[in-house]
Amino acid sequence: MPTSFAECLNHWQAVTETALNGYLPPTSQSPSRLHDAMRYSVLGGGKRVRPALAYATAEAIGLTPSSVIAAACAVELIHAYSLIHDDLPAMDDDDLRRGRPTCHKAFDEATAVLAGDALQTLAFEILTTDTQLPADPAIKLALVRLLAEATGTAGMAGGQALDLAAEGQAADLATITDIHARKTGALIRASVLLAAACQPKLSAACSAALDRYARGVGLAFQIQDDLLDIEGDPALLGKATGADQALQKLTYPAVVGVQAAHAKVAALHQETLDALSPFGAKANALRELANWLVLRQH
Amino acid sequence: MPTSFAECLNHWQAVTETALNGYLPPTSQSPSRLHDAMRYSVLGGGKRVRPALAYATAEAIGLTPSSVIAAACAVELIHAYSLIHDDLPAMDDDDLRRGRPTCHKAFDEATAVLAGDALQTLAFEILTTDTQLPADPAIKLALVRLLAEATGTAGMAGGQALDLAAEGQAADLATITDIHARKTGALIRASVLLAAACQPKLSAACSAALDRYARGVGLAFQIQDDLLDIEGDPALLGKATGADQALQKLTYPAVVGVQAAHAKVAALHQETLDALSPFGAKANALRELANWLVLRQH
Repeated sequence: MPTSFAECLNHWQAVTETALNGYLPPTSQSPSRLHDAMRYSVLGGGKRVRPALAYATAEAIGLTPSSVIAAACAVELIHAYSLIHDDLPAMDDDDLRRGRPTCHKAFDEATAVLAGDALQTLAFEILTTDTQLPADPAIKLALVRLLAEATGTAGMAGGQALDLAAEGQAADLATITDIHARKTGALIRASVLLAAACQPKLSAACSAALDRYARGVGLAFQIQDDLLDIEGDPALLGKATGADQALQKLTYPAVVGVQAAHAKVAALHQETLDALSPFGAKANALRELANWLVLRQH
Repeated sequence: MPTSFAECLNHWQAVTETALNGYLPPTSQSPSRLHDAMRYSVLGGGKRVRPALAYATAEAIGLTPSSVIAAACAVELIHAYSLIHDDLPAMDDDDLRRGRPTCHKAFDEATAVLAGDALQTLAFEILTTDTQLPADPAIKLALVRLLAEATGTAGMAGGQALDLAAEGQAADLATITDIHARKTGALIRASVLLAAACQPKLSAACSAALDRYARGVGLAFQIQDDLLDIEGDPALLGKATGADQALQKLTYPAVVGVQAAHAKVAALHQETLDALSPFGAKANALRELANWLVLRQH
């Protein structure tokens, strides 16, 4: 068993990698180029933040991490699909992702569109077929609903549309908070909510507390991301800074200033820790994750 | 109540239009441009073949059409998403769809990518939230699974990938049959299978008979489509013929010849009618649909 949080994260990353590898269709199967593009984009990279949040939530509410693996991986597949489509020439037009050519560069644009499409489908499919999830179909159906709400126009896709529309527009705190809550926040929140939905005995109070935690972490994560693009160390980040400004992206620090953005991150960090108090020591992994995601330098 | 098949089709089209309008998020809601693009692409056009197949299946197995509306519309939303993405410059690069500018022409390419993405999500979402579907969560979960299987790489997305890969390639009967079964057949089959899954009392024999019907109609529909692109009347079709040849698309008649393709359509037509014999007069709408889809001239 892992003893430190770092070991725990490594263990969870390995669990996620193995599970994703099993869920993804093999390249040996037709259409092999499409399957290859899906596997290329999903496997072998990424911090697996969202799955880690799901496993840590499971721990906090008395479930084994294995019972939420499909939920964790479904969120990660949605995340992977969104990165492929975000990188397309018509969207952010990125050539590199995690130091490797983006999907449409490594394959072609048509394959990248289809690979993103098919990863979204796969995310919903594994929630219906996985055998380690709770057997109750009402629970599985709730997972599909929660994931769809987080993925669609009320969530991630809507946030992406608002983000594109906001480029070069005047700054506004309500707008940037809404964009962040949808574009990044919705999926981070979903990681926690899907895991929580796997525990039918969870009280309404505990469920609400986890939601407060998830919303706080989601927003703090994205503001920290905005701050790192301004103040971060390119060597640590593994990418150039200043991209948001170059693209005239609406960011939280651009609206309220760098100092107020730091203060907001600190306040959200405290809120997330406060929200976990009902769970005692069982929520230590969620606490460690909040510390890591909010205080991270890359 | 509608008396003729044509009136019945009109009635079903109106039911579908009203339901889709209700499922789609309003343009008044943010992000309004994205919602506008989704509504533009889904509403006000289309024969609604797939929903009609779902309603006719419901009739054949003793369900009211209203109990399968969400299933019918979920398949139609997937169909609409696929058309938006298929029309993209990186895919088939079409400027017109049903006589109107395609989504990426009427809006922009980024919005078209996101609109397709969000329509896919919405399709799964409505299966979890609709109140007219059978209440049993196990049934709704089965609908999600069947739709995902038909939409992903084993179905429609996989067929699209194979179709792109086959452009300009040598002809082969197994390949073209596989492409057609996935690219068009999977969703047509899903229209029938999802409706059938709403009837828990359906015998395995009846379920298998409906599947034979659905597979036959799906393949015959696409071969007829291929034939119309060669022999059809552009005035009746509302579009120029010869597009497949110009794009070097792999088609059924290109592989086996026009005469053999006609013979295959006729044989499949007979098979679909034979498959319906256990259902008696209750399957008359399914028979009419088979006649219409297979014998259509546009």
